[in-house]
Amino acid sequence: MTKISFVAALAIMATATACSSKTPPKTPEKIQQAITQKRGDEPVKIIKPAKVADPAMVELGKKLYFDPRLSKSGFISCNSCHNLSMGGSDNLKTSIGHKWSQGPINAPTVLNSGMNIAQFWDGRAKDLKEQAGGPIANPGEMGYTHELAVAELQSIPGYVDEFKAVFGTDKIDIDKVTKAIAAFEQTLVTQNAPFDDWLAGDDNAITKEELEGYELFKSSGCTACHNGEALGGNSFQKMGVVEPYKTTNPAEGREAVTGKDADRFNFKVPTLRNVELTYPYFHDGAAQTLGQAVDVMGKIQLGKAFSPEENAKIVAFLKTLTGEQPAFMLPILPPSSDKSPRHNPFN
Amino acid sequence: MTKISFVAALAIMATATACSSKTPPKTPEKIQQAITQKRGDEPVKIIKPAKVADPAMVELGKKLYFDPRLSKSGFISCNSCHNLSMGGSDNLKTSIGHKWSQGPINAPTVLNSGMNIAQFWDGRAKDLKEQAGGPIANPGEMGYTHELAVAELQSIPGYVDEFKAVFGTDKIDIDKVTKAIAAFEQTLVTQNAPFDDWLAGDDNAITKEELEGYELFKSSGCTACHNGEALGGNSFQKMGVVEPYKTTNPAEGREAVTGKDADRFNFKVPTLRNVELTYPYFHDGAAQTLGQAVDVMGKIQLGKAFSPEENAKIVAFLKTLTGEQPAFMLPILPPSSDKSPRHNPFN
Repeated sequence: MTKISFVAALAIMATATACSSKTPPKTPEKIQQAITQKRGDEPVKIIKPAKVADPAMVELGKKLYFDPRLSKSGFISCNSCHNLSMGGSDNLKTSIGHKWSQGPINAPTVLNSGMNIAQFWDGRAKDLKEQAGGPIANPGEMGYTHELAVAELQSIPGYVDEFKAVFGTDKIDIDKVTKAIAAFEQTLVTQNAPFDDWLAGDDNAITKEELEGYELFKSSGCTACHNGEALGGNSFQKMGVVEPYKTTNPAEGREAVTGKDADRFNFKVPTLRNVELTYPYFHDGAAQTLGQAVDVMGKIQLGKAFSPEENAKIVAFLKTLTGEQPAFMLPILPPSSDKSPRHNPFN
Repeated sequence: MTKISFVAALAIMATATACSSKTPPKTPEKIQQAITQKRGDEPVKIIKPAKVADPAMVELGKKLYFDPRLSKSGFISCNSCHNLSMGGSDNLKTSIGHKWSQGPINAPTVLNSGMNIAQFWDGRAKDLKEQAGGPIANPGEMGYTHELAVAELQSIPGYVDEFKAVFGTDKIDIDKVTKAIAAFEQTLVTQNAPFDDWLAGDDNAITKEELEGYELFKSSGCTACHNGEALGGNSFQKMGVVEPYKTTNPAEGREAVTGKDADRFNFKVPTLRNVELTYPYFHDGAAQTLGQAVDVMGKIQLGKAFSPEENAKIVAFLKTLTGEQPAFMLPILPPSSDKSPRHNPFN
């Protein structure tokens, strides 16, 4: 049973106030329209709003995304490593998994991830639905099994009712679970960044320095890979084009999926949307600041040594890509029943 | 920068719909008034709404409550073990702390905790503000130090601005941090449970079985300790009055604070508000279901062996104590700066 409480009302009002103090509140209709791109010849495109086909499935997926009962410990949820309070990432070099396992690679942001050509740094999952099943059963991440996770959900009356309402059957399976999680993740599009407003024709949306940073970003060749709506996510590229990238991280990139030598150290180009929030950077999380990331990318991908002034301008531009963060009510999860397994994280 | 996005708008609408389908939406004013108790002679009282003196401080405290940067790992927040999606608890026997440390005792719910006579099972913290500092610096919980946590917050421009707005100074200290967290926690009052509606005079708010359960609860003596607005939290009582409580948990209760033999195994009586959501039960988390908890309490506190029918009725009554869960927008945390320390959970 979820009801809106007074605290809720207050919180909503407070949040709304906080928001409107930053930006005039928009009606859903207004926001729903993608702003149209006046500067049509730019390699960067205004990000399109999320299409929400089934709001009830999105709400179910949101609960599952926040539910640590999908992990063996009962402690780790999707949101633990793709934290929607922190740019859809965990801001750690590599993530913490079951029993404090050290993750092999930096957790990419879930924000705008529905636009990616594929999921994971090596693209081994074709879409969000396929990705969502991975961490649940990965011994070093959520450490559970699909069978146990589904059986546990099936023991929770509130979930059984909600799956029935969304899928027309109370028989839960991993396909429905990952479909609902993906439907929620698909909605995590961050619109109306200052740079989108500039693309829409508002000359005052970004500063002179930010604009100069964008011009440098283009003239230096960054847009060869970081282009389109997400400024990335739409191709695999070699890490270390001009000079090899030095890292202790053993990830081999795309080669692990295709088996082709040519794909060695090819990684999915990360989106630059909200990059101000998704530190540290690169698949190994080795770059702690945007300045470091810009410096390394210039050297190893473009053979360019940016001056401190150039670096600062590009960083200033990159910060104009921070969009509206997903804003929704904290989901309240249906309680387990007497039949539900109890988690013991310590054995 | 937080703005309300289309997804946000959708989410709010969806939630609002979900809520209003359960209960007619109330205006803040209506909710703000505590419903008045018609059945005035009952030992259980209608829970009073939270008094919110400083909404801006509550909003700051909410961010801090959800911020894992208050932990050494950068992974554990207050909400990790007092999860507001799960009745303000972690639903684990004992909690998981820094580097997967096993907690010594069951994490009590934060819901309605502002009404407690003191904080922690042994009451060693006099109030929420004093409690909030504990886990941050506890090596087995968040594992950080107050100095490092404060220095990190001081390196985050968004927090510096918000502390300045709330406290009139941009000099952050642990006193302000814990004051803000406590101000947020103070708002976590769960109103309008079905049983409150019954106390207000609505005969149809609870079923015949639930009412019989309440009558049994009273006549059996449960209300000797579980009374008032929170049905507990207002006294320390011995665990094992009629027969000793058998547990492998070494906690000695109140004696650890007072040093008095008489306080051995005295624990703060837990609230029964939202008890349906806060399994497992007792300071050692040994009772996995409400049925087990009622059975054990009957035997060791009251010398009563409840029949299965009696047990079921009391459990049915206890489930009428689930109130409106806190409902607010997921907080968006201000990003770290280049000066902020980066967390390394693995060394």
